[in-house]
Amino acid sequence: MTVRLDYTLALDTGSACGVTQAHLAAEESAFQLGLRQVRAAADAGNLGFWKLSQDEGAAEAARRLAASVPDDVHDILILGIGGSSLGGRAVYEALGGPPELRVGRRLHFPDNSDPWRLARLLDTLDPNHTAAVAISKSGGTVETAASLLVVRGWLREAGAPMNRHLMVVTDPERGSLRALVEAEGLRALPIPANVGGRFSVLTAVGLLPAALAGLDVHGLLRGADAMRQRCEQEQLTDNPAGLLAALHVLHHRLYGRHVHVLMPYADGLRAFAAWFVQLWAESLGKRHAKDGRPLETGPTPLAAVGATDQHAQVQLFMEGPRDKLVTFVSVDAPEHELTIPGEEGPNAYLGGHTLGELLTAERRGTAMALATDRRPSLTLHLPKLDAPSLGGLFFLWEAATAIAGELYGIDAFDQPGVELGKRLAFGLLGREGYERERREVESFAAARQPLVC
Amino acid sequence: MTVRLDYTLALDTGSACGVTQAHLAAEESAFQLGLRQVRAAADAGNLGFWKLSQDEGAAEAARRLAASVPDDVHDILILGIGGSSLGGRAVYEALGGPPELRVGRRLHFPDNSDPWRLARLLDTLDPNHTAAVAISKSGGTVETAASLLVVRGWLREAGAPMNRHLMVVTDPERGSLRALVEAEGLRALPIPANVGGRFSVLTAVGLLPAALAGLDVHGLLRGADAMRQRCEQEQLTDNPAGLLAALHVLHHRLYGRHVHVLMPYADGLRAFAAWFVQLWAESLGKRHAKDGRPLETGPTPLAAVGATDQHAQVQLFMEGPRDKLVTFVSVDAPEHELTIPGEEGPNAYLGGHTLGELLTAERRGTAMALATDRRPSLTLHLPKLDAPSLGGLFFLWEAATAIAGELYGIDAFDQPGVELGKRLAFGLLGREGYERERREVESFAAARQPLVC
Repeated sequence: MTVRLDYTLALDTGSACGVTQAHLAAEESAFQLGLRQVRAAADAGNLGFWKLSQDEGAAEAARRLAASVPDDVHDILILGIGGSSLGGRAVYEALGGPPELRVGRRLHFPDNSDPWRLARLLDTLDPNHTAAVAISKSGGTVETAASLLVVRGWLREAGAPMNRHLMVVTDPERGSLRALVEAEGLRALPIPANVGGRFSVLTAVGLLPAALAGLDVHGLLRGADAMRQRCEQEQLTDNPAGLLAALHVLHHRLYGRHVHVLMPYADGLRAFAAWFVQLWAESLGKRHAKDGRPLETGPTPLAAVGATDQHAQVQLFMEGPRDKLVTFVSVDAPEHELTIPGEEGPNAYLGGHTLGELLTAERRGTAMALATDRRPSLTLHLPKLDAPSLGGLFFLWEAATAIAGELYGIDAFDQPGVELGKRLAFGLLGREGYERERREVESFAAARQPLVC
Repeated sequence: MTVRLDYTLALDTGSACGVTQAHLAAEESAFQLGLRQVRAAADAGNLGFWKLSQDEGAAEAARRLAASVPDDVHDILILGIGGSSLGGRAVYEALGGPPELRVGRRLHFPDNSDPWRLARLLDTLDPNHTAAVAISKSGGTVETAASLLVVRGWLREAGAPMNRHLMVVTDPERGSLRALVEAEGLRALPIPANVGGRFSVLTAVGLLPAALAGLDVHGLLRGADAMRQRCEQEQLTDNPAGLLAALHVLHHRLYGRHVHVLMPYADGLRAFAAWFVQLWAESLGKRHAKDGRPLETGPTPLAAVGATDQHAQVQLFMEGPRDKLVTFVSVDAPEHELTIPGEEGPNAYLGGHTLGELLTAERRGTAMALATDRRPSLTLHLPKLDAPSLGGLFFLWEAATAIAGELYGIDAFDQPGVELGKRLAFGLLGREGYERERREVESFAAARQPLVC
């Protein structure tokens, strides 16, 4: 059993949505070229994510480091943001159970450097029973640096030795976190230089949090590797990542369906949906084409959760602009089930059904309702919400992102748009070397009459 | 001190975004007409949400009911979905502290009827120390009915008396929940008939969860009422809801900026952003104009959180299509602060700053970076993250939604698009009276060759 993509309702024959088998066939050669380029970059060592699933050594290293953490460490702070947080959190939430209800060691992801959360968190925890993992590839991420300074001060004040309470995941050679590792003799795991943040969940970035929570790191890689093999198929209709990419790009290009919704019918995949949003937005939202042409393109990824969002966003999906392609995710056999007790009266029809059956009926009803109004959807079927399925799902979307980047003609692996805001913030914080930015912010503010109500 | 809307960067003078003071002035009469219609509907008793902030009786009733819950009830299950869950959750998360870290009585919002969450939740809780609140205006919401059946079975099995462990918030007269209240002598609070689900946070729907968590229900209403008075101003530039509505509609109409991002720089407002998404999507996403013309319109609301999403969605906001209007939310004086300790080396510039200052610098940097590329934004300033500010924020967006509905020319208070999917799901579940829907689903599936990879 493996992850399956059902695309019946994303083609004209299923939902009269205008994208045909012929359109898909016409995309075959662009897909093949794109796949070849992605695989060539992977083979040349420039695109590390493609081969991570074969690196059992990384899983083993994460497992060993986690095993060295004493049993009396009950809480782990994962200090990272964006790609250094979302993947680990997606693993932990999907496989570690609902957030408020964890038993055993608890992981916390105070990614935002929000004092409201971090101050309360530190108030609640005992530094002698807490460890932290600082995750930043460059080592220079400001939010992570700030949180780490606070947490190190907190640990130090309690006399907690750093080599016992602080672990690091960073570049194997460079950066200020690497320097800290050397200076203080900290335990550390590397992020390979050829793996970008948002493609790093199957490195120590995701594997160490998973191992620390006692989750099945080998299963994650095994599922990802099985999916990798399917995503290397050269026939488009045999390649789930190719289909996922091509269908999203075709619906966008031909009909302006640029809002790409991921809607798992599973609470455990909420954090996964947030991971997808980063992956899709940051990879595909680009000002320039690869060849430098101005483009200002990029689909808008949207996270939703079924059935909850049937009472929130589905009204818009059903009646609003025809600019959306929805991908449902089904967990076909939920690990925990509940049977609804029977009762007389208007709710009698529910008796004997399971909650899982209710979610399935709602998902199918929603997909069909969209289709009958010529609104397309895809459905990803997970056999279970377990490590192999989740690993497969990660690789599937990463591969689809890389291929979609080729089909859109953009570089899916950079993020130049986040630099300016960061530099201006450095100016405001008085960082050395950013004096010009500080003056820019000041003159920007001075030049504008504030309009406030 | 009160909630303030800064719209400097949403006009041409601030961000060269093309929307001018003249455009705003030209919208004045449409705004005034819209406001008058909304207020007339409120005065006629058809639009209950406008006057909820004056109903101190509802706050008092919520407080009294909460006070009657014994101290040894440590956990409360809020059984509701959509508008019956999001508002209470937004209050609880903003004012009750970070979810994993609550002290005192804990509230849980298993809105999704996902067995993964509900089964684990019930495994963890002690029915003798747990109470549930079932919230559904009609009483017929299938997810709530199903969860309630499960939870009642669980309480009954433990011998927990229903009149002690189960409370209800529903229509004062009609529906199956009301019948249950009468039959079993349950404690209940009403949802006024003239208040729709997504506008109900300031009824018992939001106030009872708030009171059960020991939060300041009167402060919520006080803040909302102060905002109501400002939102009744007839000059557009004096009316924050009018400005919020008009600016969103103008950016959409004139420049296709239909992706409306709400981006609080505050972890505590994540659930608030989800509440906003429902309000905006379900109210404004409509197939028909009020006069019946086909429209298929509606902006796409998007939730983001700063600074986290600077590492996820901001790349797309900065470089992607010019189809977005971002509303930042700032908590100007965070209740909990943390000062970053000084340290030699590349992060020395952070020493002595607070985490709150870091978030502020990042927000300002991001807003200015967008503006210098002619991408507009708004900023809502909350003096603090407290009950009056949050109450004001709720009313502000509700009023803006009602006015935006008038400016878009649609009915902001119905949701016909969710019916079909629900009916088809009833068919699949074998509900009496939905035999035709069952046949429709079956023939729909039979008529399509499944395409699966």
